[in-house]
This record gives sequence, C-alpha cells and structure tokens, in this order.
Amino acid sequence: MSALEFEILAKDAEGHARRGRITLPHGVVDTPVFMPVGTQATVKSLTPADLTDDIQASIILGNTYHLMLRPGADIVEKMGGLHKFMAWNHPILTDSGGFQVWSLGDLRKIEPDGVRFQSHIDGSKWFLGPKESMEIQRKLGSDIVMAFDECTPYPATYEEARSSMEMSMRWAADCREHLPVNDTQALFGIVQGGMYGDLRRESLHAITEMDFEGIAIGGLSVGEPKEEMLASLDALADHLPVNKPHYVMGVGTPDDLIEGIDRGIDMFDCVMPSRNARNGTLFTDDGKINIKNLKHQTDSTPIMEDCTCYTCRNFSRAYLRHLYMAKEILSSRLNTLHNLHYYCDLMQRARDAIEGDNWREFRDQFLQRYRNKQS
Amino acid sequence: MSALEFEILAKDAEGHARRGRITLPHGVVDTPVFMPVGTQATVKSLTPADLTDDIQASIILGNTYHLMLRPGADIVEKMGGLHKFMAWNHPILTDSGGFQVWSLGDLRKIEPDGVRFQSHIDGSKWFLGPKESMEIQRKLGSDIVMAFDECTPYPATYEEARSSMEMSMRWAADCREHLPVNDTQALFGIVQGGMYGDLRRESLHAITEMDFEGIAIGGLSVGEPKEEMLASLDALADHLPVNKPHYVMGVGTPDDLIEGIDRGIDMFDCVMPSRNARNGTLFTDDGKINIKNLKHQTDSTPIMEDCTCYTCRNFSRAYLRHLYMAKEILSSRLNTLHNLHYYCDLMQRARDAIEGDNWREFRDQFLQRYRNKQS
Repeated sequence: MSALEFEILAKDAEGHARRGRITLPHGVVDTPVFMPVGTQATVKSLTPADLTDDIQASIILGNTYHLMLRPGADIVEKMGGLHKFMAWNHPILTDSGGFQVWSLGDLRKIEPDGVRFQSHIDGSKWFLGPKESMEIQRKLGSDIVMAFDECTPYPATYEEARSSMEMSMRWAADCREHLPVNDTQALFGIVQGGMYGDLRRESLHAITEMDFEGIAIGGLSVGEPKEEMLASLDALADHLPVNKPHYVMGVGTPDDLIEGIDRGIDMFDCVMPSRNARNGTLFTDDGKINIKNLKHQTDSTPIMEDCTCYTCRNFSRAYLRHLYMAKEILSSRLNTLHNLHYYCDLMQRARDAIEGDNWREFRDQFLQRYRNKQS
Repeated sequence: MSALEFEILAKDAEGHARRGRITLPHGVVDTPVFMPVGTQATVKSLTPADLTDDIQASIILGNTYHLMLRPGADIVEKMGGLHKFMAWNHPILTDSGGFQVWSLGDLRKIEPDGVRFQSHIDGSKWFLGPKESMEIQRKLGSDIVMAFDECTPYPATYEEARSSMEMSMRWAADCREHLPVNDTQALFGIVQGGMYGDLRRESLHAITEMDFEGIAIGGLSVGEPKEEMLASLDALADHLPVNKPHYVMGVGTPDDLIEGIDRGIDMFDCVMPSRNARNGTLFTDDGKINIKNLKHQTDSTPIMEDCTCYTCRNFSRAYLRHLYMAKEILSSRLNTLHNLHYYCDLMQRARDAIEGDNWREFRDQFLQRYRNKQS
C-alpha cells in the first residue's frame, strides 16, 4: 500500500487549478500548499507551535544535504527520526540533496552513480547518489522522499540539457528501485529538461512511466527570466497526470505561486519568505516592503492591515524597524512569522477561491494588486 | 498618591525572607521576583506571549541608555510609551542609564551634574545626569524609575567609595526633586558604598530619609568575590525599611538569588540567564550544563526532567546541542525560554516555601543540590 493518498476536491472549470488533499503517514495536507523550509531540522527562528498555531503550516521541508552533514543521518535515526528529533508531528518532505551538492560548484564532481563532494562545513569528503540519498531519507523518516537528480544549469545547450535530463531519469529509476512503494514513505520523481519544452515533456513521460507517488518539477528558479519559468510550466500543464500531486521545487514569489496554481501545481517550497524576512523584506498584498526604510520609523500601522498573524496583531512597523536596526533576534522571528503566515494564508485563499468557483477572479485581482504596488 | 503599593503576605519567622506583593499601574508583581532584562525593548529572542504564558514573568526591565540611543526616547514616547511600543502590557522597570554610561570607560567623563559620553553605536555625544535620566524615563513611561547614580568601582579605597557614594546621594536627591511622588511612576533610590559596611549603612540611611517608593542596592556583582557581595547584603539586612520593596541590582546566579532572598531581598534582575542561554549554558537544580558538550549528542532527555517549560516539554538535549552547533536562531530562543522559565519558577518555589513556612528547609536543600552537582 502506498504511503500517499491524493484526492481532488474541486477544480477550476476552464483551467488547470485544483484544490486537493494529500493524506500522509503524519497527517493531511490541503492543496495548493506552501511548505516552509526547515533546512537544519528547524524552520529558522520558529518552533513547531508557531508553525501549527499561527502559520497553519501542514507540511514542512527538510534538507538531506544539511542533515547528513550535521547532525548526521545516523544520529537523527537514533533519536527516533526527524519528526521526533525536531518535535514536528506532521508531514515532512525531504529533498534528495541533489540540488545542494550540485550548487557546491568546485567542491563537487559528478560521476555516473552520483556526486563526490566536500562538506562546506569542514571539507570532509562524501559521496551522494540515488542509493545513498534513499538510505539517508529512510533514516530521516520523512513522509515524502524526493528522487536524487541533477539540476540542469541555466543557461544550457539543448545537448547539455538532454544529457543531464537523461542522467536524472536513470537516477530516478535507481531511486524507485531502492525505495519501492511502501506504506511509510512516498517517493516523488523529478522532471528536468532545462528550458526546452520537448525535453520537459520527454522527462515527464519517463517519470510518469515509473509510477512515482507524486510528480515534481525541478530545475526552475535557477536564474532564468520569469517568462521562461512560466513557459516551462505551460509546456507541462496539459500533460501532468491529474491523479497525482504536482510539486514545483524552489518557487517562488507570491505571484509565482498564483501563476503555478493556475498551471496545475499543488505544492510549493521556497526559502524566499523566510530568508527575506531575516533581511527585513516583508510580503503584503500590495507587494514587498523594506522595513529598514526610514519612513517606517514612527509608523504605528502593522505590516499589513488585515493580516491575522501574531506579528501584525501586536506590533507596529516602527517597532519592527527598531528591532531590525538594533539587530535583535526577535526581528528575524517576527518577520519570519509574518512572511510564512502570509504565504500559507495565500494558499488558503487560493483553496477557498477554487472551492468557491472563483479562481480566475481571485487570480486576476491578486496579480493586479500585487504587481502594481511594489513599494 | 503613589504609583506603588507594597504589602507583605508572609515572612520567615526567624530571618529576613519575605513573600510580598507590589501593585503598579500596569499590574501586580508577586515577590520575591526575578525580572527578565529587555535591554532594547525586547527580551532577546522572546515575545511578550512567551514571557507571560510560558515564563510567567510579571515585570521586565528596560535599559535607559540603550533606548535613549536607539530608537530614542522621543520616538518611544511618540509611539505611546515603552509598554505599547513593545506590546508588553505589564509592569516595566527602567534603569537610569548610570551603570551603562559608567561602563563605557574611556568613552565617558563624570562631571558634577552627570556624565558626558559618546554612543557606543556611532560615537555621537550625549550628556546624562539625574535630570536627563528622569526626563527620559518619564518618556519611556516605565512603572518603576531608577535613580541616576554612579556605580562605585571594585576595588575602591574607602575614600573613593565614600566620595562616589556621596555623589550618588546628591544625585538621588536631584532625581526625587525632578520626579516627585505621583500616581503613574514610582522611583527607587539606590544604595551605594562599595564593599564598606558603614558606608553602605550611611547610604541606606540617606536613601531611606528621601522617602523613595523602593530601596535598591547597587554596585554589586561588579567583580567582587561572592563572599563580599553577601557581606554587603548582610551589612544592610537588619536596616532595610520593612515596608518597602528591596531590589538588588544585576544579581545573579540561582544560588545568589536564594541567598539574597534570605537577606530580605524582594527583586532581582540579571542578564545571566538570557546571555548564558545564547552561549549554550543552561541552568538546572543540579547546576549548569554546557549544551555544546559531546556527551549530549544523542541524549534524549530534556534539560531538566521535571521542568515544565516549552523547551523541556518538547526537545531533547541532543536536539538543543544540534541547534547550538548549527548556529540556529532557534537555539538562542529555546535556551532563553528555559533559563528564564527556570529563574522565574525558582522565585515561585521560593514564594511557596515562605508562604508554607518552609523557607529554611527549601533554601538549604536547594543550595546543597545546586552547589554540589555543577556538571
């Protein structure tokens, strides 16, 4: 029996947007969903209680690369797995480590069976391939395991993109072999192919044939213009198997999420809301604000007037600016709380719109307001 | 009418320990009490909700020196005062800035009417004396205002200590003149006198004559051996006016607090629990633990078995060690939560012991266990 069940509860009549529900060993995930990134067994600055009570997150992401180096997969396993270790008793998706080791540049060498690399922490030597990644993610005990792949660079020639995609497809098959369908962990395959529509469709076909529990789209948000990213999603939208969850990895801004949902995407993750928060950039329906700006010095209004997060319910922009300027830890925390609440609440609003047969109106109004008022 | 009411609810029959209650404009403070330090309008890493719900803090401390420089007393006043600015709707005590400017060393010059100094942030030039300190603390709007004094250095000759103490007494009179008894802010005088018992008593006599709403003891925990600190408290214990709250400033370790209560002290503040937390040192009844220690790497137990704080209810030492080693923000937060909970809970246990006519037994058992098992 599979560890993942997926049902579609509502659908935009004219397009691809859908509102679904994923059932996993550690709980239920309503889609479209945004997954906060918890790289090192913590969503930076936040507790599990913040994530459930305030942000209403239903699933978070953990990073295989970071956890295998520190504290180490064996230690996490010995402590009862990642859920118990970090006291998060809800679904977790772990990435494969592929993107992180690929990002190491000179510190890594790609071989037929995986990647040889040096730790960014202490220079120690490691090898990570499909087999190793499956074993580590098994020890971590995540609900959703990601296949080990190579992220195709941007830009890449057609031949480079084909060769990279074909290696990822071989590795995807290895991953499925090492982690067959079981009732504790689901496995998602990842579509590659760079910015070439036909390679993307060929990759999707291969992934679909392998019968993964979910379909991910990788290799986006790697430096390409937004139009190319959307064109890649457009090339796939008609071909994604409707009965499986669709996850676009590492994307993106609030308007990217809305555009993704419109192209049939159910799941998103991105470091942007949490990383930007720590740098003083806050998201609102009227675009981003920079809390450092002097104009906020005596501004008694919250970040966003109708936001229900703890930060907006209690603190003024003036106070948040003070915390940021004084380099206080609470600055990172309150800003992260708002940005992740904003992202997760935006997904709730998208789910409501699809369920209420109101998707296109919601989408158009949101995009117009968000894009016209960047302040 | 005074902004402060103080009543004694119970007393150790044989000694000085007492369990009291202070009523202030923003709420009630049960004593003995530990006041978490919120230097820059935030108790580092924590929200007001953490302080009330988990730590059960009833009063916190703010620092005049830091707030006058950033964001500035006028800005805090414009934003509705410190309570509203930081969303803490409970009592606040502000220090006078005297200790901080004194600590600036080469960056300050002491003059008859106050201290001329340069900001540690940008080198800008400032003057702070009794009059200025009262005006700034009025703008901050704290429940308890501290008199502006000079901290006598340690070591100091008898003549240096006398001269310094006499200046502080003149400044104390100036503070009372600039902040007469009123119904919104109480003013505490500060006893100085270095490590000389007769100067301490002379200073206490002067402060008592000036009729402050509370009596503070300053100039301790400035480098002297613990025995000298306790001897200074011993020199005063029989002479402290029983009908006023007694506050020893900047002290100290858990056992210092118990020793202080035993000498008639009602109020404490110290950066130790919060600063040590950020450095990975955690307090327990069995002494301090260093979470960095390799022996905690796979330790599934909490910091302290019977602790009821959020950190101990949810996380293992192994996880806390991981967060510390990975330099995660959540490390500072979870450690601070535990240490401040520990300090405030220790005061609750002290109050219970005094009320239950069990003070001496509690004191002896605590000190023996705490001091014998530093691990």
